[in-house]
Amino acid sequence: MRTIAWAGLSALLSILAAIVAPASAEDGYDLWLRYRPIEAAAAADYRMVATQLAPGGASPPIAAATAELRRGLTGLLGTTPEVSETAGAGALIYGTPAGSPQIAALDLDLGDLGREGYMIRSLRIDDRPVTVIAANSDVGVLYGAFALLRLVQTRQPIDRLDLRARPKLALRVLNHWDDLDRHVERGYAGQSIWDWHRLPDYRPELYTDYARANASIGVNGVVLNNVNANALSLTAPYVAKAAALAEVFRPYGIRVYLSARFSAPVEIGGLTTADPLDPDVQAWWRAKADEIYAAIPDFGGFLVKANSEGQPGPQDYHRTHAEGANLLADAVAPHGGVVMWRAFVYSDQAPDDRAKQAYTDFVPLDGRFRPNVAVQVKNGPIDFQPREPFHPIFGAMPATPLMMEVQITKEYLGFSTHLAYLGPLYEEVLQSDTMRPGAGATVARVIDGSADGHALSGMAGVANIGADRNWSGSHFDQANWYVFGRMAWDPEAARARPIAEEWVRMTFSNDDRFVEPVVDMMMGSREAVVDYMTPLGLHHLMATGHHYGPAPWVSDLARPEWNPTYYHQADADGIGFDRTAAGSDAVAQYAPQVGDRFSDLDAVPEPLLLWFHHLPWDYRMRSGKTLWEELVLTYDRGVSAVGEMRRTWAGLQPYVDPQRFDDVTVFLAIQDKEARWWRDASLAYFASRSGRSLPEGTTEPEHPLTYYQGLSYPFAPGN
Amino acid sequence: MRTIAWAGLSALLSILAAIVAPASAEDGYDLWLRYRPIEAAAAADYRMVATQLAPGGASPPIAAATAELRRGLTGLLGTTPEVSETAGAGALIYGTPAGSPQIAALDLDLGDLGREGYMIRSLRIDDRPVTVIAANSDVGVLYGAFALLRLVQTRQPIDRLDLRARPKLALRVLNHWDDLDRHVERGYAGQSIWDWHRLPDYRPELYTDYARANASIGVNGVVLNNVNANALSLTAPYVAKAAALAEVFRPYGIRVYLSARFSAPVEIGGLTTADPLDPDVQAWWRAKADEIYAAIPDFGGFLVKANSEGQPGPQDYHRTHAEGANLLADAVAPHGGVVMWRAFVYSDQAPDDRAKQAYTDFVPLDGRFRPNVAVQVKNGPIDFQPREPFHPIFGAMPATPLMMEVQITKEYLGFSTHLAYLGPLYEEVLQSDTMRPGAGATVARVIDGSADGHALSGMAGVANIGADRNWSGSHFDQANWYVFGRMAWDPEAARARPIAEEWVRMTFSNDDRFVEPVVDMMMGSREAVVDYMTPLGLHHLMATGHHYGPAPWVSDLARPEWNPTYYHQADADGIGFDRTAAGSDAVAQYAPQVGDRFSDLDAVPEPLLLWFHHLPWDYRMRSGKTLWEELVLTYDRGVSAVGEMRRTWAGLQPYVDPQRFDDVTVFLAIQDKEARWWRDASLAYFASRSGRSLPEGTTEPEHPLTYYQGLSYPFAPGN
Repeated sequence: MRTIAWAGLSALLSILAAIVAPASAEDGYDLWLRYRPIEAAAAADYRMVATQLAPGGASPPIAAATAELRRGLTGLLGTTPEVSETAGAGALIYGTPAGSPQIAALDLDLGDLGREGYMIRSLRIDDRPVTVIAANSDVGVLYGAFALLRLVQTRQPIDRLDLRARPKLALRVLNHWDDLDRHVERGYAGQSIWDWHRLPDYRPELYTDYARANASIGVNGVVLNNVNANALSLTAPYVAKAAALAEVFRPYGIRVYLSARFSAPVEIGGLTTADPLDPDVQAWWRAKADEIYAAIPDFGGFLVKANSEGQPGPQDYHRTHAEGANLLADAVAPHGGVVMWRAFVYSDQAPDDRAKQAYTDFVPLDGRFRPNVAVQVKNGPIDFQPREPFHPIFGAMPATPLMMEVQITKEYLGFSTHLAYLGPLYEEVLQSDTMRPGAGATVARVIDGSADGHALSGMAGVANIGADRNWSGSHFDQANWYVFGRMAWDPEAARARPIAEEWVRMTFSNDDRFVEPVVDMMMGSREAVVDYMTPLGLHHLMATGHHYGPAPWVSDLARPEWNPTYYHQADADGIGFDRTAAGSDAVAQYAPQVGDRFSDLDAVPEPLLLWFHHLPWDYRMRSGKTLWEELVLTYDRGVSAVGEMRRTWAGLQPYVDPQRFDDVTVFLAIQDKEARWWRDASLAYFASRSGRSLPEGTTEPEHPLTYYQGLSYPFAPGN
Repeated sequence: MRTIAWAGLSALLSILAAIVAPASAEDGYDLWLRYRPIEAAAAADYRMVATQLAPGGASPPIAAATAELRRGLTGLLGTTPEVSETAGAGALIYGTPAGSPQIAALDLDLGDLGREGYMIRSLRIDDRPVTVIAANSDVGVLYGAFALLRLVQTRQPIDRLDLRARPKLALRVLNHWDDLDRHVERGYAGQSIWDWHRLPDYRPELYTDYARANASIGVNGVVLNNVNANALSLTAPYVAKAAALAEVFRPYGIRVYLSARFSAPVEIGGLTTADPLDPDVQAWWRAKADEIYAAIPDFGGFLVKANSEGQPGPQDYHRTHAEGANLLADAVAPHGGVVMWRAFVYSDQAPDDRAKQAYTDFVPLDGRFRPNVAVQVKNGPIDFQPREPFHPIFGAMPATPLMMEVQITKEYLGFSTHLAYLGPLYEEVLQSDTMRPGAGATVARVIDGSADGHALSGMAGVANIGADRNWSGSHFDQANWYVFGRMAWDPEAARARPIAEEWVRMTFSNDDRFVEPVVDMMMGSREAVVDYMTPLGLHHLMATGHHYGPAPWVSDLARPEWNPTYYHQADADGIGFDRTAAGSDAVAQYAPQVGDRFSDLDAVPEPLLLWFHHLPWDYRMRSGKTLWEELVLTYDRGVSAVGEMRRTWAGLQPYVDPQRFDDVTVFLAIQDKEARWWRDASLAYFASRSGRSLPEGTTEPEHPLTYYQGLSYPFAPGN
């Protein structure tokens, strides 16, 4: 037997750390619903305001609220409040006027809360202090229960409450790009949590915990399957599986939706056409909708990706997107369902600027969609890049309800390994002013319907959820699920920083020595990714297919707009995509004031400079540096920011459990390595285009360009 | 808003049960290393014998033993034994004579323990009672530590111990059929636990817990990748990933192995041939082995599937399996590595009886393999069917070390949803007497090398492990992982029932009111599967590709031996595969006494009747019933047995935690449904072949044959 060289001490220590970790290790499964005991002093105060639970009624949402309050208060305060009919001092009374005589007797003004809103108020009844959670629906009450728990989790006083809250959007939806074989397209958290093979019979607790997490942030809809849809998901066996999930989700106010393959009438219906104007096709979809609603009475409706990246659609029959959307809308309308029709389209013919094509296809259709159709528009005109300007369709279709689609999964921001908090990205686009019809018409006010007076409104997030124990593939990516829900609740008022702080307090610690540096780190993290991947308005520089790592040199793909070189246009003279009037004139798709600002070199935001302009390498930036110099320095800034994040995290060990501390430490090390890879590979390539060497004092790429061009990752996840 | 029909009460209750389940719910992650507090009275006695831990040395295996003893004794006894240099009364002293002066001073006789064996003895030192765990290697000590914990977990006295144990097999190996994209071929427990994309950097605690579980049952080798191998797993990036896993596993005495694609020299080596006699090919494999051993000094070696089901191999160059195996054997020999060469081959030309082909190919090669080659033979001659006779190669290659390969994953026994304890299957084959050269040469004695005097010996199990939280996809499938390890430790002496009892006590409860019925249920469970899937020696009746569900009617596949009809030969006259001298004469591959018994209708075991004989439907069984009647009754017996399992389990609710009780309850319901499906579909088909109706008093199939033939499961897992 040969003797073995043992692992180094550090490796050994980490092995032992892992070995002795308690079974109750912090593996992230609890998400932000992490009800750990709070400081004794504070707990005593809270207990006085949570002595009893007095639920109004026994519907599943009320039962879920009772269960959550018991679980949460028991965990946080160390004592389990009894459930009681009569409310004594410190009781928590919750319900609707319709379901609870106690609530009705209080004669509260719930008029402005809508169906899903809630109020939480500290009152005295018969001179006994009580806390009331009231709403117009049982689900509203459940939302209020989660809100109350959030106050305790974040250590806010709850003895003098007078809160009112209601969601500003009707549809707050997660899109799961989950395939029927449990592969998740652009999924970086393991396989799909939908165990289709064992559904409908087996419904693991995971499904209930998923619903709890969504309800706690106000998500009220889930599209179960990939927008690149398989028609089989509309067949009876899969409808039964979807119905089983709907049954688990229903108490939490969550409706299920399905992505519909437009050619399903041919593929599973035995028809010879899917033409939206064909009566047999219309009858088939009506019957299919009836069948689904018979199994799922609160089925939400369909999401459709049509005539996009090879998917079938109405244009296959020379019909418009409106005619296609209305076909499905008419089928679900009798049942109160909606159709979410994606505007993510670009021609597969030699194209105009890809950034312009969705607008060109859809804006002329404004007003031609049924009232139960929402057109789902991505936040930017290309495809979920680290930074894009807001999509020009926002504000340009006033007669059509527009939803915004964002990615929660980080297809283009480092998968689940890079720490990148997306709150600032969401806030940036939501606060963008479309100036249509005039100032103040922010994207937030477009999608909440207030700008154009639509009742149908919504926001969709491409989920980052998988079977990984921590749900999102990394601990910090849970924050992106969280911030999506919180921002979709009130897109205009929501801000990334307070939501990040809220999440950190609920998920990790209320110790300010931890909270402040971590929130700062999160708030800067997305900009760091922009800097080391696609600075100054560059975009679409990633590797082909799996999108893992840099490949700005790729220029040989079948379709021009699939090539990074199409987007950066770098040559010996300069870099950038000219979208001014002198170029593709994409700026003309925005309101004049907005387009003019983007066109004006003195006014365009420098973070979007190369999105809208092709400029010489010697172009003078506002800093006085040349574009080439600034480009290099921006890449360096991104890399340095990751180093700073590592140093910050390393100093926080005293405030976080070993398992999550180690997980994050390792992921930040990977991010550091990959940030350098992005920086070095990109600069090696751009140097070869510009024929320039790196400025004095900057580091040369670690390897020659050919090294980076030779790297291959055939099994990168999510593809 | 339309009102919603709420889920039925039972569904609602299960929802609530899930909601209120504690965070520390029993999700199965702990496996049999479930160190829950034991009864106070018993704990007191045990504590007296575990007051202190006195480790000998600080090597990683000793550190792992200390960590495990602390974790286990703390969990079981509620007090943490201190680690101390000097051993007081009740101390636990463990180590090797080489590493611990304390152990050396005791001058114990460890001569017969080998490298991996251990002794546990209660002694008095300076008149103080102590317990000593001694071995010749630190890993032996770790095995002893797990053994001591097992005694406490199963409530056996530990105050008068005098145990000696050593493994009878050198190689106790798990084969992971895991692909580089995390798909697991024949995996029913989620995707691969190997997160190749994040390796080598990220090594989650899961990997350490996997190693702990394996070490606790004596598994000392892991083949990381699928036998249908991708050559990329031999490239530098993947070798580095394998090295990271080896580093985690090393303290637990586990070596990593890789499945090697025979054509790798061409695919990743840039050679034009993979001919084993080509000097460049030989040099390439030597260099590759050197590269791997530089990264993994204790690398175990290669597993190879060659010239089997489309895999490349030496026969592509008109060389023998021996010449192919020796090529790799010579490459790893200088480093102490081995080659496990699979005998699972069958011709893709119009074949002789498939059951004969491995023997035909390999037996003539006996004696032509290098000493560091083990030929890996499946338990039976076809392919892991619910029941097969032992493989005729066992006993027929005395000059060659033979390993046995079994499936732990239940490709053909209901995936992970059906409860089927495989201990009886393993025991049945291990105890089969090959009669070569004479009586007593059981399969166990063939593979442990004692029959033919081989030092190289081993047993391989195709793992049933995936990323599912409970590791195996179901709670009871953990028992199959467990029994594999325990039987591989001592194949001749091991018995399925005591191992099942041990596992139940460690995993669930020591309450005899639970243990006895559950062990009985487990012991009968595999026979139930045989009865409702492939009774009386029938085999290979499953659906094509994914193997989910029955399809005895399939007869149109490209290769005759892929069709179920090839195996059952059912027609109007009779059923069964004639493997007697009058038929394929497969019986001639066994020792004469064995072959004669299989050939003799009065001697052949009826459970193997139709494996060896084609018989008329009216053949009189020993019961006096006709074959047709017996066939129907056997299917019915299988279905009834599942019903009995459900009744048994339903009565055990008081003794098991809610989460595992509910999980098992749901899975047994699925098994019941699928057992009826197997029975009904198979009998509907055989009735159509035999032209007979079902006997009086038996239930007609629920649907006509065409219904079962029309079922389709394109996304069944594991394919």
